[in-house]
Amino acid sequence: MKNYFSYTVVVLVLLFAACRNDQKLESIQSQHKGLIFPQGDKNTSDNFKGEVWVKSLVDADSLNKNAVGNVTFAPGARSKWHSHPAGQILLVTDGVGYYQEKGQPRKILRKGDVIKCPPNVPHWHGASQDTMFVQVAVTGRQKGPTVWLEAVSDRIYLSKGK
Amino acid sequence: MKNYFSYTVVVLVLLFAACRNDQKLESIQSQHKGLIFPQGDKNTSDNFKGEVWVKSLVDADSLNKNAVGNVTFAPGARSKWHSHPAGQILLVTDGVGYYQEKGQPRKILRKGDVIKCPPNVPHWHGASQDTMFVQVAVTGRQKGPTVWLEAVSDRIYLSKGK
Repeated sequence: MKNYFSYTVVVLVLLFAACRNDQKLESIQSQHKGLIFPQGDKNTSDNFKGEVWVKSLVDADSLNKNAVGNVTFAPGARSKWHSHPAGQILLVTDGVGYYQEKGQPRKILRKGDVIKCPPNVPHWHGASQDTMFVQVAVTGRQKGPTVWLEAVSDRIYLSKGK
Repeated sequence: MKNYFSYTVVVLVLLFAACRNDQKLESIQSQHKGLIFPQGDKNTSDNFKGEVWVKSLVDADSLNKNAVGNVTFAPGARSKWHSHPAGQILLVTDGVGYYQEKGQPRKILRKGDVIKCPPNVPHWHGASQDTMFVQVAVTGRQKGPTVWLEAVSDRIYLSKGK
């Protein structure tokens, strides 16, 4: 009977330890879901379709004309077609997304990918259908603001070609 | 005797489960240790003290004059004092580091922090004593290359003041 009790205590301690590890694991996985930079506020403009959050990290000023922002797209969310007069650099920090320049095939982007979008080239970006997508965008403001164009149709969004 | 055997099996299975979780935990922690962008090659110039790895992510060109690089500092590693003719933006992606502009107190930087260093302001950056530090640097190249200055002494590195 004494042995039975001892074993029960050992089993309970091990169960507790395993459970604690699972909780720690979930916490770390959650912590690393694109949460390097703040998610910011939900976009309310019609420049995007679906749920998108934008956090400005650096404002352009007279000395450094780059604006830096963190953009989080929910699965299926996307920008309209648009272009930047001084170009843009995209740094993908989490998730899976799409990037397409006018007349080019759609590219799949993953954590660690980097895109250099030339000035005045119409393009769109967004999350893939099933996975959120987080990017840091570095946008030169020395030649004016972003030029917004037409919406990206579902046909274009889902198409792998041009 | 049969009960004893059953309990031994249960204990071994639970021990195995706990151990597997520990391995998974370590794997995820390691995976997220600054590994969003490639670590690149170990620096061999004398512009840094300690172990530093640099990976160029974007080269400046005639249309977009920003260079983007991923820099990983081992604990204790630091740059020399230096300045950038067109300024620099630092995006901290992991670890704990230091940043100091000449004549200003040393700042502690953590994952998610962003620094905007004005043009021609001498500064240095590096890891803290005990923790590595990973940053993405966005550096304008339109006004020339980085100007490297003197080494950061241990006294300055360890000092919290100016």
